[in-house]
Amino acid sequence: MSRWEPGAAERLHTAALELALEHGFAAITVPQITARAGLTTRTFFRHFTDKREVLFTGESVLPTVMAQVFASAAPDLTPMEVIATSLRDVVAPRFDGLRDYLRLLRGVIRSDEGLRERELRKRSLIAEAGAAGFRDRGLNDLEATLAAQLAATVIDVAVGRWLDEDTERPLADIILETTTAMQAVVTRPS
Amino acid sequence: MSRWEPGAAERLHTAALELALEHGFAAITVPQITARAGLTTRTFFRHFTDKREVLFTGESVLPTVMAQVFASAAPDLTPMEVIATSLRDVVAPRFDGLRDYLRLLRGVIRSDEGLRERELRKRSLIAEAGAAGFRDRGLNDLEATLAAQLAATVIDVAVGRWLDEDTERPLADIILETTTAMQAVVTRPS
Repeated sequence: MSRWEPGAAERLHTAALELALEHGFAAITVPQITARAGLTTRTFFRHFTDKREVLFTGESVLPTVMAQVFASAAPDLTPMEVIATSLRDVVAPRFDGLRDYLRLLRGVIRSDEGLRERELRKRSLIAEAGAAGFRDRGLNDLEATLAAQLAATVIDVAVGRWLDEDTERPLADIILETTTAMQAVVTRPS
Repeated sequence: MSRWEPGAAERLHTAALELALEHGFAAITVPQITARAGLTTRTFFRHFTDKREVLFTGESVLPTVMAQVFASAAPDLTPMEVIATSLRDVVAPRFDGLRDYLRLLRGVIRSDEGLRERELRKRSLIAEAGAAGFRDRGLNDLEATLAAQLAATVIDVAVGRWLDEDTERPLADIILETTTAMQAVVTRPS
Protein backbone atom coordinates (compact mmCIF):
# COMPACT_ATOMS: atom_id res chain seq x y z
CA MET A 1 0.00 0.00 0.00
CA SER A 2 1.47 3.34 -1.01
CA ARG A 3 2.01 6.06 1.56
CA TRP A 4 -0.58 8.25 -0.17
CA GLU A 5 -3.26 5.83 -1.26
CA PRO A 6 -5.16 7.57 -4.08
CA GLY A 7 -8.66 8.49 -3.04
CA ALA A 8 -8.05 7.29 0.51
CA ALA A 9 -9.79 10.28 2.11
CA GLU A 10 -12.90 9.75 -0.06
CA ARG A 11 -12.97 6.00 0.62
CA LEU A 12 -12.67 6.59 4.36
CA HIS A 13 -15.40 9.22 4.19
CA THR A 14 -17.77 6.88 2.33
CA ALA A 15 -17.02 4.00 4.72
CA ALA A 16 -17.61 6.21 7.77
CA LEU A 17 -20.89 7.53 6.39
CA GLU A 18 -22.13 4.01 5.56
CA LEU A 19 -21.18 2.68 9.00
CA ALA A 20 -22.73 5.68 10.79
CA LEU A 21 -25.98 5.12 8.88
CA GLU A 22 -25.95 1.44 9.82
CA HIS A 23 -24.91 1.64 13.49
CA GLY A 24 -25.06 5.30 14.59
CA PHE A 25 -22.01 7.56 14.66
CA ALA A 26 -21.35 7.09 18.40
CA ALA A 27 -21.06 3.31 18.02
CA ILE A 28 -18.50 3.14 15.22
CA THR A 29 -14.71 3.07 15.57
CA VAL A 30 -11.77 4.12 13.41
CA PRO A 31 -10.66 0.46 12.95
CA GLN A 32 -14.17 -0.37 11.67
CA ILE A 33 -14.00 2.53 9.22
CA THR A 34 -10.57 1.58 7.92
CA ALA A 35 -11.54 -2.10 7.62
CA ARG A 36 -14.63 -1.14 5.56
CA ALA A 37 -12.45 1.08 3.35
CA GLY A 38 -9.70 -1.57 3.00
CA LEU A 39 -7.12 0.79 4.49
CA THR A 40 -5.03 0.96 7.67
CA THR A 41 -5.57 3.11 10.74
CA ARG A 42 -2.18 4.70 9.97
CA THR A 43 -3.62 5.90 6.68
CA PHE A 44 -6.71 7.18 8.51
CA PHE A 45 -4.64 9.28 10.91
CA ARG A 46 -2.51 10.64 8.08
CA HIS A 47 -5.69 12.24 6.71
CA PHE A 48 -7.83 12.94 9.79
CA THR A 49 -7.16 13.85 13.41
CA ASP A 50 -10.19 11.95 14.69
CA LYS A 51 -13.36 10.05 13.83
CA ARG A 52 -15.40 13.23 13.55
CA GLU A 53 -13.22 14.89 10.91
CA VAL A 54 -13.71 12.11 8.34
CA LEU A 55 -17.32 13.28 7.84
CA PHE A 56 -16.20 16.82 6.92
CA THR A 57 -14.00 16.15 3.88
CA GLY A 58 -16.22 18.49 1.86
CA GLU A 59 -14.62 21.47 3.59
CA SER A 60 -11.36 20.93 1.74
CA VAL A 61 -12.82 22.56 -1.39
CA LEU A 62 -13.95 25.71 0.46
CA PRO A 63 -10.81 27.82 -0.15
CA THR A 64 -10.91 26.99 -3.89
CA VAL A 65 -14.62 27.78 -4.13
CA MET A 66 -14.26 31.07 -2.27
CA ALA A 67 -11.37 32.09 -4.55
CA GLN A 68 -13.50 31.27 -7.62
CA VAL A 69 -16.41 33.28 -6.25
CA PHE A 70 -14.38 36.48 -6.01
CA ALA A 71 -12.33 35.87 -9.17
CA SER A 72 -15.53 35.46 -11.22
CA ALA A 73 -17.41 38.47 -9.78
CA ALA A 74 -17.38 41.53 -12.07
CA PRO A 75 -16.05 44.65 -10.30
CA ASP A 76 -19.28 46.63 -10.73
CA LEU A 77 -21.55 44.11 -8.98
CA THR A 78 -23.14 45.14 -5.68
CA PRO A 79 -22.46 42.89 -2.66
CA MET A 80 -25.89 41.25 -2.97
CA GLU A 81 -25.26 40.70 -6.70
CA VAL A 82 -21.92 39.06 -5.90
CA ILE A 83 -23.69 36.79 -3.44
CA ALA A 84 -26.61 35.95 -5.72
CA THR A 85 -24.64 35.36 -8.92
CA SER A 86 -21.72 33.53 -7.36
CA LEU A 87 -23.90 31.21 -5.34
CA ARG A 88 -25.89 30.46 -8.51
CA ASP A 89 -22.96 30.11 -10.92
CA VAL A 90 -20.08 28.85 -8.77
CA VAL A 91 -21.59 27.14 -5.73
CA ALA A 92 -24.88 25.59 -6.96
CA PRO A 93 -23.24 23.53 -9.77
CA ARG A 94 -21.01 21.84 -7.18
CA PHE A 95 -24.11 20.43 -5.48
CA ASP A 96 -25.48 18.87 -8.69
CA GLY A 97 -26.37 15.22 -8.20
CA LEU A 98 -25.40 15.26 -4.52
CA ARG A 99 -28.82 15.75 -2.96
CA ASP A 100 -29.38 12.15 -1.83
CA TYR A 101 -25.84 11.90 -0.46
CA LEU A 102 -26.12 15.25 1.34
CA ARG A 103 -29.43 14.23 2.89
CA LEU A 104 -27.83 11.10 4.33
CA LEU A 105 -24.83 13.08 5.58
CA ARG A 106 -27.09 15.72 7.14
CA GLY A 107 -29.07 13.00 8.93
CA VAL A 108 -25.90 11.61 10.50
CA ILE A 109 -24.65 15.07 11.49
CA ARG A 110 -27.98 15.98 13.07
CA SER A 111 -27.96 12.77 15.12
CA ASP A 112 -24.84 13.73 17.11
CA GLU A 113 -24.23 16.88 19.15
CA GLY A 114 -20.48 16.85 18.51
CA LEU A 115 -21.07 16.63 14.75
CA ARG A 116 -23.65 19.43 14.88
CA GLU A 117 -21.14 21.71 16.59
CA ARG A 118 -18.42 20.76 14.13
CA GLU A 119 -20.80 21.57 11.25
CA LEU A 120 -21.22 25.12 12.55
CA ARG A 121 -17.49 25.70 12.05
CA LYS A 122 -17.99 25.55 8.28
CA ARG A 123 -20.07 28.69 8.50
CA SER A 124 -17.21 30.47 10.27
CA LEU A 125 -14.78 29.42 7.55
CA ILE A 126 -17.10 30.77 4.83
CA ALA A 127 -17.62 34.01 6.74
CA GLU A 128 -13.89 34.60 7.26
CA ALA A 129 -12.91 33.90 3.65
CA GLY A 130 -15.86 35.95 2.41
CA ALA A 131 -14.97 38.96 4.55
CA ALA A 132 -11.45 38.98 3.07
CA GLY A 133 -12.90 38.80 -0.45
CA PHE A 134 -15.31 41.66 0.13
CA ARG A 135 -12.58 43.82 1.69
CA ASP A 136 -10.53 43.25 -1.48
CA ARG A 137 -13.52 44.61 -3.43
CA GLY A 138 -13.30 47.85 -1.44
CA LEU A 139 -15.91 47.36 1.28
CA ASN A 140 -14.91 48.65 4.69
CA ASP A 141 -14.28 46.14 7.43
CA LEU A 142 -17.79 46.27 8.92
CA GLU A 143 -19.58 46.04 5.56
CA ALA A 144 -17.29 43.22 4.39
CA THR A 145 -17.98 41.25 7.57
CA LEU A 146 -21.73 41.72 7.16
CA ALA A 147 -21.72 40.86 3.45
CA ALA A 148 -19.86 37.62 4.18
CA GLN A 149 -22.34 36.76 6.94
CA LEU A 150 -25.19 37.37 4.50
CA ALA A 151 -23.55 35.04 1.98
CA ALA A 152 -23.11 32.33 4.62
CA THR A 153 -26.74 32.75 5.69
CA VAL A 154 -28.06 32.55 2.12
CA ILE A 155 -26.10 29.40 1.29
CA ASP A 156 -27.00 27.71 4.61
CA VAL A 157 -30.69 28.51 4.31
CA ALA A 158 -30.95 27.75 0.59
CA VAL A 159 -29.15 24.39 0.79
CA GLY A 160 -31.24 23.47 3.84
CA ARG A 161 -34.46 24.18 1.97
CA TRP A 162 -33.20 22.34 -1.11
CA LEU A 163 -32.54 19.25 1.00
CA ASP A 164 -35.94 19.57 2.71
CA GLU A 165 -38.02 19.87 -0.45
CA ASP A 166 -39.85 16.99 -2.10
CA THR A 167 -39.74 18.65 -5.52
CA GLU A 168 -36.91 18.59 -8.04
CA ARG A 169 -36.61 22.39 -8.00
CA PRO A 170 -32.98 23.30 -8.80
CA LEU A 171 -30.80 24.71 -6.02
CA ALA A 172 -30.11 27.76 -8.20
CA ASP A 173 -33.83 28.66 -8.13
CA ILE A 174 -33.94 28.34 -4.34
CA ILE A 175 -30.84 30.54 -4.03
CA LEU A 176 -32.56 33.23 -6.11
CA GLU A 177 -35.70 32.96 -3.99
CA THR A 178 -33.59 33.24 -0.82
CA THR A 179 -31.60 36.31 -1.90
CA THR A 180 -34.84 37.99 -3.03
CA ALA A 181 -36.46 37.23 0.33
CA MET A 182 -33.38 38.57 2.13
CA GLN A 183 -33.69 41.87 0.30
CA ALA A 184 -37.42 41.97 1.05
CA VAL A 185 -36.82 41.42 4.78
CA VAL A 186 -34.19 44.16 4.97
CA THR A 187 -36.00 46.74 2.85
CA ARG A 188 -39.61 46.00 3.90
CA PRO A 189 -41.41 49.27 4.74
CA SER A 190 -43.61 49.68 7.81
CA MET B 1 -24.27 22.38 52.37
CA SER B 2 -27.79 22.60 50.95
CA ARG B 3 -28.69 20.60 47.90
CA TRP B 4 -29.21 23.80 45.89
CA GLU B 5 -26.44 26.08 47.07
CA PRO B 6 -27.56 29.63 46.21
CA GLY B 7 -25.45 31.17 43.47
CA ALA B 8 -23.54 27.91 42.98
CA ALA B 9 -23.61 28.10 39.17
CA GLU B 10 -22.26 31.66 39.21
CA ARG B 11 -19.52 30.79 41.74
CA LEU B 12 -18.45 27.78 39.68
CA HIS B 13 -18.45 29.92 36.54
CA THR B 14 -16.26 32.58 38.16
CA ALA B 15 -13.88 29.99 39.59
CA ALA B 16 -13.57 28.23 36.21
CA LEU B 17 -12.89 31.50 34.39
CA GLU B 18 -10.23 32.54 36.93
CA LEU B 19 -8.51 29.16 36.77
CA ALA B 20 -8.63 29.08 32.96
CA LEU B 21 -7.03 32.53 32.84
CA GLU B 22 -4.30 31.40 35.24
CA HIS B 23 -3.50 27.95 33.85
CA GLY B 24 -5.23 27.58 30.47
CA PHE B 25 -8.58 25.85 30.03
CA ALA B 26 -7.07 22.52 28.94
CA ALA B 27 -5.04 22.23 32.15
CA ILE B 28 -7.80 22.73 34.70
CA THR B 29 -10.04 20.07 36.25
CA VAL B 30 -13.52 19.97 37.74
CA PRO B 31 -12.11 19.25 41.26
CA GLN B 32 -9.90 22.36 40.96
CA ILE B 33 -12.92 24.44 39.95
CA THR B 34 -15.09 23.17 42.78
CA ALA B 35 -12.26 23.64 45.34
CA ARG B 36 -11.82 27.26 44.19
CA ALA B 37 -15.56 27.83 44.49
CA GLY B 38 -15.80 26.09 47.88
CA LEU B 39 -18.30 23.56 46.52
CA THR B 40 -18.36 19.83 45.84
CA THR B 41 -18.02 18.02 42.51
CA ARG B 42 -21.52 16.66 43.14
CA THR B 43 -22.80 20.22 43.12
CA PHE B 44 -20.83 20.88 39.91
CA PHE B 45 -22.43 17.97 38.09
CA ARG B 46 -25.88 18.95 39.33
CA HIS B 47 -25.45 22.17 37.32
CA PHE B 48 -23.19 21.23 34.40
CA THR B 49 -22.61 18.11 32.31
CA ASP B 50 -18.90 18.84 31.85
CA LYS B 51 -16.05 21.31 32.31
CA ARG B 52 -16.88 23.14 29.09
CA GLU B 53 -20.48 23.96 30.02
CA VAL B 54 -19.53 25.95 33.13
CA LEU B 55 -18.19 28.72 30.87
CA PHE B 56 -21.55 29.11 29.07
CA THR B 57 -23.85 29.97 31.97
CA GLY B 58 -24.79 33.20 30.15
CA GLU B 59 -26.92 31.16 27.76
CA SER B 60 -29.49 30.46 30.46
CA VAL B 61 -30.96 33.97 30.01
CA LEU B 62 -31.43 33.59 26.24
CA PRO B 63 -35.04 32.31 26.30
CA THR B 64 -36.07 35.15 28.64
CA VAL B 65 -34.31 37.76 26.50
CA MET B 66 -35.80 36.46 23.26
CA ALA B 67 -39.28 36.48 24.82
CA GLN B 68 -38.75 40.11 25.95
CA VAL B 69 -37.57 41.10 22.48
CA PHE B 70 -40.78 40.00 20.83
CA ALA B 71 -43.08 41.04 23.67
CA SER B 72 -41.68 44.59 23.51
CA ALA B 73 -41.73 45.01 19.71
CA ALA B 74 -44.69 47.07 18.46
CA PRO B 75 -46.75 45.20 15.83
CA ASP B 76 -46.14 47.79 13.09
CA LEU B 77 -42.32 47.60 13.21
CA THR B 78 -40.51 46.19 10.17
CA PRO B 79 -38.21 43.20 10.78
CA MET B 80 -35.11 45.44 10.70
CA GLU B 81 -36.79 47.84 13.12
CA VAL B 82 -37.55 44.95 15.47
CA ILE B 83 -33.90 43.92 15.27
CA ALA B 84 -32.50 47.43 15.71
CA THR B 85 -34.78 48.59 18.53
CA SER B 86 -34.82 45.35 20.48
CA LEU B 87 -31.06 44.93 20.37
CA ARG B 88 -30.71 48.54 21.53
CA ASP B 89 -33.42 48.50 24.23
CA VAL B 90 -33.52 44.89 25.45
CA VAL B 91 -30.14 43.33 24.69
CA ALA B 92 -27.61 46.18 25.02
CA PRO B 93 -28.57 47.09 28.63
CA ARG B 94 -27.80 43.53 29.69
CA PHE B 95 -24.18 44.03 28.60
CA ASP B 96 -23.74 47.19 30.71
CA GLY B 97 -20.65 46.97 32.90
CA LEU B 98 -19.68 43.54 31.56
CA ARG B 99 -17.10 44.56 28.96
CA ASP B 100 -13.98 43.64 30.95
CA TYR B 101 -15.50 40.33 32.06
CA LEU B 102 -16.66 39.49 28.53
CA ARG B 103 -13.20 40.27 27.12
CA LEU B 104 -11.62 37.83 29.56
CA LEU B 105 -14.24 35.19 28.78
CA ARG B 106 -13.78 35.71 25.02
CA GLY B 107 -10.02 35.28 25.42
CA VAL B 108 -10.49 31.92 27.14
CA ILE B 109 -13.04 30.74 24.56
CA ARG B 110 -10.79 31.73 21.65
CA SER B 111 -7.89 29.80 23.20
CA ASP B 112 -9.60 26.41 22.88
CA GLU B 113 -11.10 24.80 19.79
CA GLY B 114 -13.74 22.91 21.77
CA LEU B 115 -14.87 26.15 23.42
CA ARG B 116 -14.94 27.99 20.07
CA GLU B 117 -17.23 25.32 18.63
CA ARG B 118 -19.45 25.40 21.70
CA GLU B 119 -19.70 29.19 21.39
CA LEU B 120 -21.09 28.84 17.86
CA ARG B 121 -24.07 26.93 19.27
CA LYS B 122 -25.32 30.11 20.93
CA ARG B 123 -25.88 31.61 17.50
CA SER B 124 -28.05 28.62 16.56
CA LEU B 125 -30.13 29.06 19.70
CA ILE B 126 -30.69 32.75 18.92
CA ALA B 127 -31.55 31.97 15.30
CA GLU B 128 -34.09 29.28 16.25
CA ALA B 129 -35.85 31.36 18.90
CA GLY B 130 -35.81 34.41 16.60
CA ALA B 131 -37.34 32.52 13.69
CA ALA B 132 -40.25 31.43 15.90
CA GLY B 133 -40.75 35.03 17.06
CA PHE B 134 -40.79 36.42 13.53
CA ARG B 135 -43.21 33.72 12.36
CA ASP B 136 -45.54 34.79 15.17
CA ARG B 137 -45.33 38.32 13.72
CA GLY B 138 -46.66 37.02 10.41
CA LEU B 139 -43.48 36.54 8.36
CA ASN B 140 -43.45 33.43 6.21
CA ASP B 141 -41.06 30.65 7.14
CA LEU B 142 -38.25 31.73 4.78
CA GLU B 143 -38.42 35.40 5.77
CA ALA B 144 -38.63 34.57 9.47
CA THR B 145 -35.55 32.34 9.19
CA LEU B 146 -33.62 35.07 7.38
CA ALA B 147 -34.71 37.84 9.78
CA ALA B 148 -33.53 35.75 12.74
CA GLN B 149 -30.19 35.10 11.03
CA LEU B 150 -29.82 38.84 10.44
CA ALA B 151 -30.50 39.49 14.13
CA ALA B 152 -27.91 36.89 15.18
CA THR B 153 -25.38 38.41 12.77
CA VAL B 154 -25.97 41.96 14.02
CA ILE B 155 -25.61 41.02 17.68
CA ASP B 156 -22.51 38.86 17.03
CA VAL B 157 -20.79 41.50 14.93
CA ALA B 158 -21.78 44.45 17.15
CA VAL B 159 -20.71 42.79 20.41
CA GLY B 160 -17.45 41.66 18.79
CA ARG B 161 -16.66 45.22 17.72
CA TRP B 162 -17.66 46.61 21.11
CA LEU B 163 -15.21 44.23 22.80
CA ASP B 164 -12.49 45.10 20.26
CA GLU B 165 -12.74 48.88 20.61
CA ASP B 166 -10.45 50.99 22.79
CA THR B 167 -13.07 53.72 23.17
CA GLU B 168 -15.96 53.85 25.61
CA ARG B 169 -18.53 54.04 22.81
CA PRO B 170 -21.79 52.45 24.08
CA LEU B 171 -22.85 49.09 22.64
CA ALA B 172 -26.18 50.66 21.63
CA ASP B 173 -24.31 53.05 19.27
CA ILE B 174 -22.39 50.17 17.70
CA ILE B 175 -25.62 48.21 17.23
CA LEU B 176 -27.15 51.18 15.38
CA GLU B 177 -24.03 51.52 13.21
CA THR B 178 -24.18 47.79 12.44
CA THR B 179 -27.86 47.69 11.46
CA THR B 180 -27.35 50.78 9.28
CA ALA B 181 -24.36 49.14 7.56
CA MET B 182 -26.39 45.96 7.06
CA GLN B 183 -29.09 47.92 5.25
CA ALA B 184 -26.45 49.71 3.18
CA VAL B 185 -24.84 46.41 2.12
CA VAL B 186 -28.17 44.89 1.10
CA THR B 187 -29.59 47.95 -0.69
CA ARG B 188 -26.36 49.36 -2.19
CA PRO B 189 -26.92 50.23 -5.87
CA SER B 190 -24.43 49.29 -8.61
